[in-house]
Amino acid sequence: MYDLTPVFVSLKKAQALLALENRSRKDKALEAAAAAINADRKLILGANAADVTKAKSGGMTEALIDRLLLSDQRIDDIISGIETVIRLEDPIGKVLSGWTLPNGLLVEKLTVPLGVAAIIYESRPNVTADAFSLAYKSGCGILLRGSSAALESNRALVKAIRRGLAEGGGIPDAVNLADSGSRDEVDLILNARGFIDVVIPRGGRELIRRVVDNAKVPVIETGEGNCHIYVEQSADMKNAAKIIANAKLQKPGACNAVETVLVHREALSSLMPLLAEELAGKAELRCDGPSKAAIAGKNGTPGLNIKDAVEEDWATEFLDYILAVKTVDSVDEAIDHINRYGTKHSEAILTADLRTADEFCRRVDAACVYTNASTRFTDGGEFGFGAELGISTQKFHARGPMGLVALTTIKYRISGRGQIRE
Amino acid sequence: MYDLTPVFVSLKKAQALLALENRSRKDKALEAAAAAINADRKLILGANAADVTKAKSGGMTEALIDRLLLSDQRIDDIISGIETVIRLEDPIGKVLSGWTLPNGLLVEKLTVPLGVAAIIYESRPNVTADAFSLAYKSGCGILLRGSSAALESNRALVKAIRRGLAEGGGIPDAVNLADSGSRDEVDLILNARGFIDVVIPRGGRELIRRVVDNAKVPVIETGEGNCHIYVEQSADMKNAAKIIANAKLQKPGACNAVETVLVHREALSSLMPLLAEELAGKAELRCDGPSKAAIAGKNGTPGLNIKDAVEEDWATEFLDYILAVKTVDSVDEAIDHINRYGTKHSEAILTADLRTADEFCRRVDAACVYTNASTRFTDGGEFGFGAELGISTQKFHARGPMGLVALTTIKYRISGRGQIRE
Repeated sequence: MYDLTPVFVSLKKAQALLALENRSRKDKALEAAAAAINADRKLILGANAADVTKAKSGGMTEALIDRLLLSDQRIDDIISGIETVIRLEDPIGKVLSGWTLPNGLLVEKLTVPLGVAAIIYESRPNVTADAFSLAYKSGCGILLRGSSAALESNRALVKAIRRGLAEGGGIPDAVNLADSGSRDEVDLILNARGFIDVVIPRGGRELIRRVVDNAKVPVIETGEGNCHIYVEQSADMKNAAKIIANAKLQKPGACNAVETVLVHREALSSLMPLLAEELAGKAELRCDGPSKAAIAGKNGTPGLNIKDAVEEDWATEFLDYILAVKTVDSVDEAIDHINRYGTKHSEAILTADLRTADEFCRRVDAACVYTNASTRFTDGGEFGFGAELGISTQKFHARGPMGLVALTTIKYRISGRGQIRE
Repeated sequence: MYDLTPVFVSLKKAQALLALENRSRKDKALEAAAAAINADRKLILGANAADVTKAKSGGMTEALIDRLLLSDQRIDDIISGIETVIRLEDPIGKVLSGWTLPNGLLVEKLTVPLGVAAIIYESRPNVTADAFSLAYKSGCGILLRGSSAALESNRALVKAIRRGLAEGGGIPDAVNLADSGSRDEVDLILNARGFIDVVIPRGGRELIRRVVDNAKVPVIETGEGNCHIYVEQSADMKNAAKIIANAKLQKPGACNAVETVLVHREALSSLMPLLAEELAGKAELRCDGPSKAAIAGKNGTPGLNIKDAVEEDWATEFLDYILAVKTVDSVDEAIDHINRYGTKHSEAILTADLRTADEFCRRVDAACVYTNASTRFTDGGEFGFGAELGISTQKFHARGPMGLVALTTIKYRISGRGQIRE
C-alpha cells in the first residue's frame, strides 16, 4: 500500500515552525510564491494543456473541462487571489479575551493555528493556490489532494509554490501534494489521526459522503446547497422575479444558486407571470398545482417550459437550469419546508413585512439567511474573506464561507506568580 | 434493538422552540428546575442510596462510590451550580461582528445554539445537572447518558428538572435521559446524524476511545491529561516544590494534575531535595538517573519512595500519587518532550526568565499553558465559566474548559434591498 507517512511527518514538522512565523515573514513568503507562479506560467500552462488533452480523449464533458482549464487570465486571477490573502490581517496571535481570576492569575485566550489541514477536491486548479495561501497565512500546513484529472497542473503549481517559499525565506514543506493518483491516498488521509487536524472535502455530494462516512479525523462538510427563496405577499414582485432569476441563472452550478422558490398563496397571481417571463427560454419550471395554474395565461410564451413538480424535486439540488416552485400558506409552512428539505446553506425571504422577515431569520436553520437579496452572495470572496476554503454546511467549528478563521483554534495562556489551588 | 428515535425527534422539536426563548424565560425555567431539585431532595437522596447500595454489593471501589454518592451538601452544590449558570450572560444572539459589502448588503455574524448535544458520562450525578443547565442556557437540547451505576439518581434528578421546567414555563422535552441501561443506546447516539449535533464523552480513556472511534456525529474529546511542569534553573525552587506538590497532591485523580516534572539539569541540585521533602510519604517518585542521583542524600527521609522511571512512565496519566521526573538539558528538550508525550491539556513552566517563558508558551501545543502556577486551574469553575461540560483536549470547535460557548455556533444574517449578483 502507498505510504503517506513521510509526507505527514514532514508537514507536521514544518507546521510547528510555520506557527511561529510572524505576519511579515509569512506575507513575504506568499509574495515569493505568487512571483514563482508568475515565473512558471508557461510550465504551468503546458502541464495544464497535457491534463486537458488527456481529459478530452477520456471523454470529459465541456463543463468539466472548463473547470479544469487554465489560461493566462486564470493564472492572473490565481496570483491576485494570493495577493488578496497577503493584504488580509494575520488571524494568529489575536487576544480574543482575557481576564484576571480572584487569585490574581491572568487568563488570556489567544488564536493559534489549527495545525495541518488536508483538502480533497475536484478539478479546479485554482483551489490549489487558494487553499495553500489561506493555510500558509493562518500558520497551517496543507496537504492538497486534487483530482487525478488535474494532476499535472497541480504538480506544476505546487512545484512553483514550494520553490517560491524557499526563495522567500518561507517553509516549503508546509505545503505538499498527494500525487500518487491512488485511491488509497484518500483513505490514508482520512485515517491520519495525530497528523491531520482537519480534512475538507470540496466537490460533489458523493465525495463529501465518502469523506464524512469514513474519516477518523475531523471533517468540515462543504458545498451541498439546496437553497430556497420564499416570496411573501408584501414583496415588490418585479424585484422578486429579478432576484429569483439572478439566484437561478447567474451560475446554476454553484452551491448558493436557488433550487426551490416557495410562494405565498396570495403572492401567486402577482409573482408567477413575472417569473414565467423572466425564466422563459432560460430555465425549466417544476410547479405544484396552484403555481402552475397561476401562469396558465402565459402558456403561449416562447420558451416557457413548465413541468409538474414531484416530491423528489423538493429534495434535489439541481445544479442546473431547473427551478422548483411550491405554494405555501404561511411563513410557518415556508420555514418548516426549508428546515426539512434544506441543506442549511443559504435561504432567503423577499418581503416588505418586518415581522415576517424577523420570524424567517430567527427560525430558519442555515449558515446564511437573507432578507431581500439573492442567495448568490454566500461566498468567501463576496463576504470579503479573500479566497475561500469552501462553504461549510455544518454547525461544528466552522459555518458558512470559510476564510482564515476556519483554520485557527485557541490556546489559553495563564500567567501567575506562584499560585496554587486551595 | 432498543429504539431512541422518539427521544431524538422530541429533543429536536423541543430544541427548535428553546432556540427562540429569550434570556429571562430561560433563566426563569432554570430557577424552577433548581427549585424542583430542592423540593425533590428526599426522593433524589433515596434514589441515590439505592444506587449506592447496589454499587457496594457489586464490589465498586470506595473512590468510585464517593463519586457516585450524593448528600445534602452535594445537592446544595448542584443547586448553586444552576444558580451560577443563571447569572451568566446569555451566549445566544450576540453580534460577533458585522460589516457592509460594497453593494450595500449588511452582513452580521450572530451566535445561535449548536442544536442537540449528547453527553455520555460516568458515575457523578452532578454532571447531570451541570450539563443540563449549560445546555438549556445556550438554547440546546441535551440527551444525558449516565452510567448504569447512577441510573436511579439520574432518573430522579431528570424527573425533578423536567417537572421544574414545566412549572417555570420552560420546555421540559429539551432535556432527556437515555435510561434503558442497554449498551446499544450508546451506538444509537453515536450514529444519530441529523438529530445529535455533538456528542461529548466524559470519563475514562476507554470510553473516550470508544466514542471517538465509532461516532458518525461530531465529537468533543475530553479529559485525558498527561500534564507536565518544566522547572527551569532560574525558578524560585522553594515555590517550585510547593507548586509541583499542589499540582500532584491536591487531587491526583483530576485530569489537570501533573504527571511528569521536567527538570533542567542545572536545577536538579536545588530543586530535587526540596521536592523529595514535599512528597515524602505522600507520593511515589519515578526518577531518571540524574534526578535520582540529586536526591541520593535524602535516602533516609521517612516515607520517601523512589523508583526508576521507565519509558512507559512518560506516556502515562497515573491519576494517582505517582510523579515521574525527567532531566532535560534545555527548554527545547522540554518542549519536544511535552509535544511528544503530552495530551494537549495543561502544561506549565516555572521560571524567572522572560525569554524562556515566552518560548515555552509559544511552542507548547496545549489548551492551557501556564507560567509560574499550578496546572490545577484548568477548570470551567476556576476560569469563571460556571459549570463545565468537560475539558476539551482537541483543537476542533472547542478547546480547554468548555462552558456555554462550546454549545453555540454562528449564523450569518444578511439584509438587503434587492441586491443581485452581477
